[in-house]
Amino acid sequence: MSAEQRLAKLGLELPPAPKPGGLYKPVVVVGNVAYVSGHAPWRNDGTVIVGCVGDDMTLEQGQQAARQTGLAILSTLRFTLGTLDRVTRVVKLLGFVRSTNAFQQQPAVLNGCSQLFADVFGPDQGIGARSAIGTNVLPNGIAVEVEGIFEIM
Amino acid sequence: MSAEQRLAKLGLELPPAPKPGGLYKPVVVVGNVAYVSGHAPWRNDGTVIVGCVGDDMTLEQGQQAARQTGLAILSTLRFTLGTLDRVTRVVKLLGFVRSTNAFQQQPAVLNGCSQLFADVFGPDQGIGARSAIGTNVLPNGIAVEVEGIFEIM
Amino acid sequence: MSAEQRLAKLGLELPPAPKPGGLYKPVVVVGNVAYVSGHAPWRNDGTVIVGCVGDDMTLEQGQQAARQTGLAILSTLRFTLGTLDRVTRVVKLLGFVRSTNAFQQQPAVLNGCSQLFADVFGPDQGIGARSAIGTNVLPNGIAVEVEGIFEIM
Repeated sequence: MSAEQRLAKLGLELPPAPKPGGLYKPVVVVGNVAYVSGHAPWRNDGTVIVGCVGDDMTLEQGQQAARQTGLAILSTLRFTLGTLDRVTRVVKLLGFVRSTNAFQQQPAVLNGCSQLFADVFGPDQGIGARSAIGTNVLPNGIAVEVEGIFEIM
Repeated sequence: MSAEQRLAKLGLELPPAPKPGGLYKPVVVVGNVAYVSGHAPWRNDGTVIVGCVGDDMTLEQGQQAARQTGLAILSTLRFTLGTLDRVTRVVKLLGFVRSTNAFQQQPAVLNGCSQLFADVFGPDQGIGARSAIGTNVLPNGIAVEVEGIFEIM
Repeated sequence: MSAEQRLAKLGLELPPAPKPGGLYKPVVVVGNVAYVSGHAPWRNDGTVIVGCVGDDMTLEQGQQAARQTGLAILSTLRFTLGTLDRVTRVVKLLGFVRSTNAFQQQPAVLNGCSQLFADVFGPDQGIGARSAIGTNVLPNGIAVEVEGIFEIM
């Protein structure tokens, strides 16, 4: 099954491809590598998920925000590439989780995004290298921000 | 117009190419991709802009720090490559803004760097992918740190 | 001397290659570039170094944590590639140091990792581009997290 077929089978709806909130492009392609800008947890209604995990958000809510960030990235990739079927592999994700000093499960939060990519691109091609980082603040108060490198054809 | 011609027309003076403040190289080139180390907001007099946006710095001061960081990156690129005209494209920037928990306009801060690159490399080639992240602390108290990937010839 | 020969001469013992603490791969290779996931300061006994530099850790303890993170990365690279001798160059490191707001020597902390790579890969090939960032929190309370890009053959 292709990525687009898996997405359809999962019944997933992608949020609109987010417009850049500054002077940047959502994706830049160099050769067969796509560099994807840091994405926010966009909901389908055009709002973003704000909050701080460990304070006003639970781990599960953080995971949901990471998943929604992944859906926004998929929307950007489809918008830029025409179809998700041009993505051959997730190379690397760098994810930031807005966290209290005491909340230390950033990898579990980002699994919300990684599981989505595994579901859509497959358990091998959908899982790449990753770093999970906590931080005290992210743009517009969003809970999660993820950037990525994808191999494409 | 070339990047060097645009820079001259803008009347911009670059700070001296910063010497590494640790065990790293300012730039490493792999094929036609230049990986640029995290740069600080170096002033032309060899000092750096310190501060925390939302505390002792305004948004505008943060933008100025981001612009100065961009000038330092340009200086490093010219020093390493011989001329900025070898840069064909900004691929990706990753920028960190030292911020209070309440300050959430990191993308607007980093526009200070991105606008400079658009002015020098052109509105298409000078704008790449980007992530804007807040953090509680950066080396030596600097307000902004930006690393980048550039396509070169 | 090769990297493996230098490592043997230095008498360094690598910790076990860490298993991913989430949905990611330790390394993804694209062409001649290896993308290494964010690594923790794993000790040889399978525990990690936790703490916050400037609070319950000194600069020297932070450097030791960064060095141990580097040893974990070497272990992962050897496990994935079969031998460290396939690494031709350190391209770029991105390191995060869990820090108080007042501790601002993140580059000096990360030198603990970079010096190790210089010792193992050589003073030129072992030193790449780098960014040093502070943050209020990292996964599981670890003191340092480093991801990297390596050129391989």
